[in-house]
Amino acid sequence: VNRTLVRLLLDREQELRERHGISFRITGVATRRLGWIADPDGLDQAALLALSSDELPNPTRAEPALSGTEGTLAPHHPEPRDNVRDWLSAAHADVLFEATALNLESGQPAVDHIRAALEHGAHAITANKGPIVHAYRELRDLATAQGKRFLFESTVMDGVPVFSLFPQLPLIHLQGFHGILNSTTNVILSEMENGLSFDESLKKAQALGIAETDATHDIDGWDAAVKTAALITVLMDVPVKLDEIQSEGIGGLSGEAVRAGRKEDRPYKLICRVKKTASGITASVRPEQIPLTDPMAQIAGTSSYIYFETDIFPGLAITEENPGLYATAYGMLADFVRAVRPDISLR
Amino acid sequence: VNRTLVRLLLDREQELRERHGISFRITGVATRRLGWIADPDGLDQAALLALSSDELPNPTRAEPALSGTEGTLAPHHPEPRDNVRDWLSAAHADVLFEATALNLESGQPAVDHIRAALEHGAHAITANKGPIVHAYRELRDLATAQGKRFLFESTVMDGVPVFSLFPQLPLIHLQGFHGILNSTTNVILSEMENGLSFDESLKKAQALGIAETDATHDIDGWDAAVKTAALITVLMDVPVKLDEIQSEGIGGLSGEAVRAGRKEDRPYKLICRVKKTASGITASVRPEQIPLTDPMAQIAGTSSYIYFETDIFPGLAITEENPGLYATAYGMLADFVRAVRPDISLR
Repeated sequence: VNRTLVRLLLDREQELRERHGISFRITGVATRRLGWIADPDGLDQAALLALSSDELPNPTRAEPALSGTEGTLAPHHPEPRDNVRDWLSAAHADVLFEATALNLESGQPAVDHIRAALEHGAHAITANKGPIVHAYRELRDLATAQGKRFLFESTVMDGVPVFSLFPQLPLIHLQGFHGILNSTTNVILSEMENGLSFDESLKKAQALGIAETDATHDIDGWDAAVKTAALITVLMDVPVKLDEIQSEGIGGLSGEAVRAGRKEDRPYKLICRVKKTASGITASVRPEQIPLTDPMAQIAGTSSYIYFETDIFPGLAITEENPGLYATAYGMLADFVRAVRPDISLR
Repeated sequence: VNRTLVRLLLDREQELRERHGISFRITGVATRRLGWIADPDGLDQAALLALSSDELPNPTRAEPALSGTEGTLAPHHPEPRDNVRDWLSAAHADVLFEATALNLESGQPAVDHIRAALEHGAHAITANKGPIVHAYRELRDLATAQGKRFLFESTVMDGVPVFSLFPQLPLIHLQGFHGILNSTTNVILSEMENGLSFDESLKKAQALGIAETDATHDIDGWDAAVKTAALITVLMDVPVKLDEIQSEGIGGLSGEAVRAGRKEDRPYKLICRVKKTASGITASVRPEQIPLTDPMAQIAGTSSYIYFETDIFPGLAITEENPGLYATAYGMLADFVRAVRPDISLR
């Protein structure tokens, strides 16, 4: 994600300056391979561009994470905590872009990185869902205390402003939601409907760059469950543990079953469902057969969908169709603008 | 709309105070029947509630419009301009809620009311699309110069935050959109599919309180065209005249044609379409037969839909299903919160 973000930032540099009065320098990059690089005067852009295209051929092994006089990055694997602090100081970081891989159990090292950034006095922007599930309240309150922002729009629906929508819905009471939030399984199900086996579909999703080399979290439903937990935590203000979400993946579905479902006009989809109850919430992630009259039946490939149930709007749904290459990195860029130009919503 | 707003404001008074630190007094009401009422100490709530339920049985003849130490309202028909100014002063208005009826030709008297409110130093919130089409840039710039807000979220999709979404999409380039934006015609088409004639369907829409006594603007496509023009004007920053939108209503469709369309799985819908071109935009509002694979085929009754084409998100769609009674007035309430608590997007 952060490699794409570097390209997107450089691509939109002029527009950021002219439309929003934002200028930035990338003053730090940290990856498992490169270590902790910092230069408060700004890293060389040509080198960054090279790094963002060829130098790091395996994005799962080396996610750069940026910092700067607006801009900073964090590493892919746990490192002694002092490294982050020293690096943030050396980079004179005003903003940390955190994009380490999801750790289901603890949210680490992302939680430590974000905490360090906020304590350092930088905004913290993450594409990692783990910290929301494991440390949302702490990080939110720390950000408030520091007068900085903790933002994570790109964690659900590739940067479509789902989290940012709700402050625009003051006094609304969210009573539940359902949707399709995991691209990898949705691509696999679409390909299985088209005649491929499960393994062939997974390989195709991997070849397209949608699924990671290890797609276990997607297939088992955990990626969708963590997104569901993040939405519950932030939008319903109900702290929820992952094991409170009944999760079932798509590994048990045969190609025959998937094709028969589509043929009967009751296609299989991996559906997240949440309902508010008197005592809290009920939540599930599981494959369901849904009728063609439900808009979810048409959500194919990398598209995603969420349907919110609220008191004023009984059904308010957002569809993201065929996100572009930049969609996830865009969520981080938009968070960057939100963080450094909070007056943007007054335009 | 403003009658419902009074009820909604009083209903959410405690929550506004406790969640957002907003307290208000309704210090003025203006309607064609009641004239210009003002009391800076606040009007009697019981009287307002009575007014909002029984006193004004015909909402098309007397839309109250509110004002206050947060709150003010405006009249249904042209009145000498001094009346508005005197009334805003007498009410000590901080906010004007404008809900006069749509004037396709000039946007008056709403434009004058909003201008007067901004010049007086009050935020101006309108449910009327006319001023956006006829005076958007002037009113937007006047609001900026006065340090006040000119807001109009309830003019399109009943207060679903469509206009408020775009500041949350910084650097996005909107290339076009399409959708279903007029409830009256959508209800009529749904009822015709169910076997009613055009006239019976219109009467049913009127009995349900969806269509006005004079539904000409809806049926002829003008309501949808004005909404389309408002979206183009605000979201694409292209000033567009109504006659640049090719508009055709649903008056030419027979019950037989509508039922045959649904039977062939190509139902009729009144569709708004806009595309950016090299020289400007092309825009149309007309009945179209659409395939069942298009989500618009499922948008029935009072539901509405908009699909935005952008560079980062090739398809970003919002569906509003079965809006509640308060949906349009809610848009004005949300604008009120946005105006007086601009920090709300930082939560």
